[in-house]
Amino acid sequence: MGNAMINGVKLTPLRQIEVPNGDVFHALKSSDAEFCGFGEAYFSEVAPGAIKGWKRHNRMTLNIIPINGSIGFVIYDDREGSPTRGCFDHIVLSRDGNYQRLTLPPGLWMAFYGAGESTNMLLDIIPEPHDPIEADRRELSEIKFNFPCEF
Amino acid sequence: MGNAMINGVKLTPLRQIEVPNGDVFHALKSSDAEFCGFGEAYFSEVAPGAIKGWKRHNRMTLNIIPINGSIGFVIYDDREGSPTRGCFDHIVLSRDGNYQRLTLPPGLWMAFYGAGESTNMLLDIIPEPHDPIEADRRELSEIKFNFPCEF
Repeated sequence: MGNAMINGVKLTPLRQIEVPNGDVFHALKSSDAEFCGFGEAYFSEVAPGAIKGWKRHNRMTLNIIPINGSIGFVIYDDREGSPTRGCFDHIVLSRDGNYQRLTLPPGLWMAFYGAGESTNMLLDIIPEPHDPIEADRRELSEIKFNFPCEF
Repeated sequence: MGNAMINGVKLTPLRQIEVPNGDVFHALKSSDAEFCGFGEAYFSEVAPGAIKGWKRHNRMTLNIIPINGSIGFVIYDDREGSPTRGCFDHIVLSRDGNYQRLTLPPGLWMAFYGAGESTNMLLDIIPEPHDPIEADRRELSEIKFNFPCEF
């Protein structure tokens, strides 16, 4: 569910290739328009019903792929001068059902929640190795959104 | 289980970072010694008890991370002049229990099997986008190995 409406946010459908004994699932290629360099790949888990965020990357573009379970992403745009300033995107992705890559440019706030009842896991590919001072954080209560996760 | 003994094969323990609401699992950084460029990241599934292989990449180094279930890797070295020619490696990796990255240089045969009873999935990061003519294949029966998967 959900379409990206915030300026610069992009959703890209990913292919599942049928292979005997186990399929192959595309994630990211260096030739993709959304690729902006490789600094690190890591996985992030989010427990069922739990929410991680808010966090804003100030330099890095995130390329996020849902690999386990189901994950809801909420993005908030408070960028000065943005045509979508004040808007929220709400997108739910999963490998089974809505297998898309989410590309998030720097400068936007994001929180994400575990929408599946078991393991929820994403792959994030970023253009520099992890750098904690590159991101800002806010408490969940500081940006109001009615998260639909109560299980 | 298993240690890499074949010349050039490397296992690197990966960190699991405890984070409230869901942990972070390291996969690969551009600063890691095993990193050799980014061409593509993709996932490959292998059904419980199923075997994929044999396959030999002739140009690309594979960096493989077990993200779901448990996967057994069997590597066979028939490289002329290799100090470990004729050897097999047999390594079982999983995110829960033996979370390591497997780095496989080109020129070696590999087969892998689903050792977990549910979804078994790996992430593979390769230095060029997928190129089918870069790899050779053999039937399982062409390289004799007693695979321990019969469930």
